Amino acid sequence: MALTSEDKVAIARKLDELGVNVIEAGSAITSEGERESIRAVAAEGLNAEICSYCRIMKQDVDFALASNVDSIHLVAPVSDLHISVKLRKDRETVRQMAIETTEYAREHGLIVELSGEDASRADMDFLKSLYIDCVEAGADRLCFCDTVGLLVPERTEALFRDITSAVRAPLSIHCHNDFGLGTANTIAALRGGARQAHVTINGIGERSGNTSLEEVVMTIEWLYKQKTGINTKEIFKTSRLVSRLTGIPVAPNKSLVGGNAFTHEAGIHVHGLLADTSTYEPIKPEVIGRERKIVLGKHAGKSSVTLALKEMGLSVDDTQLHEVLDRVKEMGDHGKRVTDADLQTIAETVLNIQKEAKVVLEEYTVVSGNKVIPTASVRMKVDGKEVIEASIGDGPVDATLASIKKGIQSLGDVQLEEYHVDAITGGTDALVEVLVKLSKDGKMVTSRGARTDIVMASVEAVLNGINRLI
Amino acid sequence: MALTSEDKVAIARKLDELGVNVIEAGSAITSEGERESIRAVAAEGLNAEICSYCRIMKQDVDFALASNVDSIHLVAPVSDLHISVKLRKDRETVRQMAIETTEYAREHGLIVELSGEDASRADMDFLKSLYIDCVEAGADRLCFCDTVGLLVPERTEALFRDITSAVRAPLSIHCHNDFGLGTANTIAALRGGARQAHVTINGIGERSGNTSLEEVVMTIEWLYKQKTGINTKEIFKTSRLVSRLTGIPVAPNKSLVGGNAFTHEAGIHVHGLLADTSTYEPIKPEVIGRERKIVLGKHAGKSSVTLALKEMGLSVDDTQLHEVLDRVKEMGDHGKRVTDADLQTIAETVLNIQKEAKVVLEEYTVVSGNKVIPTASVRMKVDGKEVIEASIGDGPVDATLASIKKGIQSLGDVQLEEYHVDAITGGTDALVEVLVKLSKDGKMVTSRGARTDIVMASVEAVLNGINRLI
Repeated sequence: MALTSEDKVAIARKLDELGVNVIEAGSAITSEGERESIRAVAAEGLNAEICSYCRIMKQDVDFALASNVDSIHLVAPVSDLHISVKLRKDRETVRQMAIETTEYAREHGLIVELSGEDASRADMDFLKSLYIDCVEAGADRLCFCDTVGLLVPERTEALFRDITSAVRAPLSIHCHNDFGLGTANTIAALRGGARQAHVTINGIGERSGNTSLEEVVMTIEWLYKQKTGINTKEIFKTSRLVSRLTGIPVAPNKSLVGGNAFTHEAGIHVHGLLADTSTYEPIKPEVIGRERKIVLGKHAGKSSVTLALKEMGLSVDDTQLHEVLDRVKEMGDHGKRVTDADLQTIAETVLNIQKEAKVVLEEYTVVSGNKVIPTASVRMKVDGKEVIEASIGDGPVDATLASIKKGIQSLGDVQLEEYHVDAITGGTDALVEVLVKLSKDGKMVTSRGARTDIVMASVEAVLNGINRLI
Repeated sequence: MALTSEDKVAIARKLDELGVNVIEAGSAITSEGERESIRAVAAEGLNAEICSYCRIMKQDVDFALASNVDSIHLVAPVSDLHISVKLRKDRETVRQMAIETTEYAREHGLIVELSGEDASRADMDFLKSLYIDCVEAGADRLCFCDTVGLLVPERTEALFRDITSAVRAPLSIHCHNDFGLGTANTIAALRGGARQAHVTINGIGERSGNTSLEEVVMTIEWLYKQKTGINTKEIFKTSRLVSRLTGIPVAPNKSLVGGNAFTHEAGIHVHGLLADTSTYEPIKPEVIGRERKIVLGKHAGKSSVTLALKEMGLSVDDTQLHEVLDRVKEMGDHGKRVTDADLQTIAETVLNIQKEAKVVLEEYTVVSGNKVIPTASVRMKVDGKEVIEASIGDGPVDATLASIKKGIQSLGDVQLEEYHVDAITGGTDALVEVLVKLSKDGKMVTSRGARTDIVMASVEAVLNGINRLI
């Protein structure tokens, strides 16, 4: 989804805190809404230079001026394919348009970064001569756009050595990730003499996206041991903010910022990891502002299970540990991830200390509809005493959980910190997986429910969690 | 989640159809469930070599033998960090264990690929001598594991030139994607003399995952113009299968197989794209078995909207087109993506041909609970006639949609082809977005509902879709 003005400002502030030099805040030509949001970003008075995308047309520059930006990313198609098919013009007309628009923007006080679009398919002599003419016309910086992601690292480095030796202005690199080479090509360009890199948080962008800021920054800082000026500790928070506001999810296996980047499924690896985290971690998660997670599954080993049980305050002997391990693996074989609630249940069964569940749900009923206030009632045993409660809510799930919350008031203040439902795909009778995070007096537990009925799955998750908390 | 035996067989069959040479089917040591699933894959009689992961222990080889695999991926820690911290052994002990396990596996008829774990942090002289000794002991292939993803392309290529000139057996590359360089490093290794590459579908794997098969294959085929032997047309289907069975989602901006890899948000780009798809597409989507998508948003332009309207059988004049475009952009500015249902509604409003909705929901009520059969009733106007129906279901959503389906039977056979709920995060009162795909007589529509109540969001999505279909 597109970003609102408030969203853009929130992201721009965070990028500024992160330490980026230039923020491309939008394309002023797009719409009045877009211009408003660019103006809002420009009005923040950030350290970063605020930039708008422009085509090589004075009209676009006027819209950029009306948006109060510091600079423009002025994009001229440079491959014959783009010049002839998209613009229906020829090379010399494009050259003239690029020069005139550059001059016009400079006359009006804008910083100009002149970009060659589809440069990787352009004639290099034409591209270089265009760059030289535009620098002559006042362009402050140049940019090479690999518009459809066709570069490979060794070619990128060679191209940049060639171009940077021929032009006087600093050259930027702008990559797309169509073949998964965006980060490597960006690094190769920097090695070849590029002075700036265009990157995006989480690698978002058209089609397969652009180069990821986090990958480029951490590659430079950790693999090439050079400083970028980026406040790396803010990377993860920035990633979450951008994902939340754009609605674009980050894959669990995304480098650095994906959900699993610092998750270790227990087994052989965790043994080494516990002894020295560098065995299976390229960097410590704290470096980018996040935490390590260890989860159990079918590869769970003795060391990881022991660690997890220890954290729960349970100690087991060798025979018991084997039994716990076997049951964890059995769940793994059935395709499940073992949460801490599952592990506690398993361990307690094995240790024969099955506590009587404090809260037992006997019955719940919920009514909802478009002309009915969603209403739920519950009958539960809390500490052996029967409790009946009812509540309204924002829908059947909300109403049911609200009535359960009322019923357990006597146990103290249990808070629902997080409620997450995995995406449901298939039919309306597909399995719904609900994960909840509950807290009480600073203690936090995560638990799960999985049913075809979303209300029932939510109830199950919450009750499991409550019984572990108290 | 872990894969069941049936899941593994389905994936192995698909990989075989895709043309991969070796399938690592699991770690036989893990559990009896894992061994069963490896045996099931081995029993398929595929063209691909079936392989199991083993540590340098005879016990692991025995489990591999008991799983009927053709080969083992025999992994020996080779960096001092892994040797001392993880194994608590020394280099010479590891060498001895690797040699003995190789010999043992060869004696029992297994093909052996001997892997150096954490090779990128190993002493290169030790690594080469270990490789040479293991080839002497019978290893058929060797592998270099960049276990925590620390390689960069130029170093990878140099390392591979050096090692392949020193050893007689073919060398493989196994990369991790911790810094987003997996694909580039794998390609660099192949340029440096590697003969095989370890890859995974969608780049899944521990932490940030391993190198993506699809990225490596398409880079070789399209950017280096060489054949891989992979049936590229099956790539997208394989990606979907693996994502579905593992439950690991693919990011929309994942190269090649992500949801947006061939999606063009309308605007300046689509104009060029319509004239010649190569302007903004590195390859045609059909090459990997998928289709191009054009969506509308705040960057929507005349050409894309005209195209979409044409596909709906609506023609507009210039003034009307402007009005439609303004409204589409307004939705975009408010952060929404415009589905075809939205566009049709906008266009019909502008064209003043607002059809009376055929199906109008007047009222629905649903009851569910743990001791109640989920039951819903609806009162609707269908073609102006009042219809009342009731139905049970698997939960409140299923029951309500079933009763609506009963109510519209007179209109023909409307099928719910797909029901998708975006992940819900936040609280139980968070906005729930439901997307449905409905079909009738071969015609298909997609529509959306967004409410805090999941039942209401589902009802809204289905009714919008039904009214467009009929």
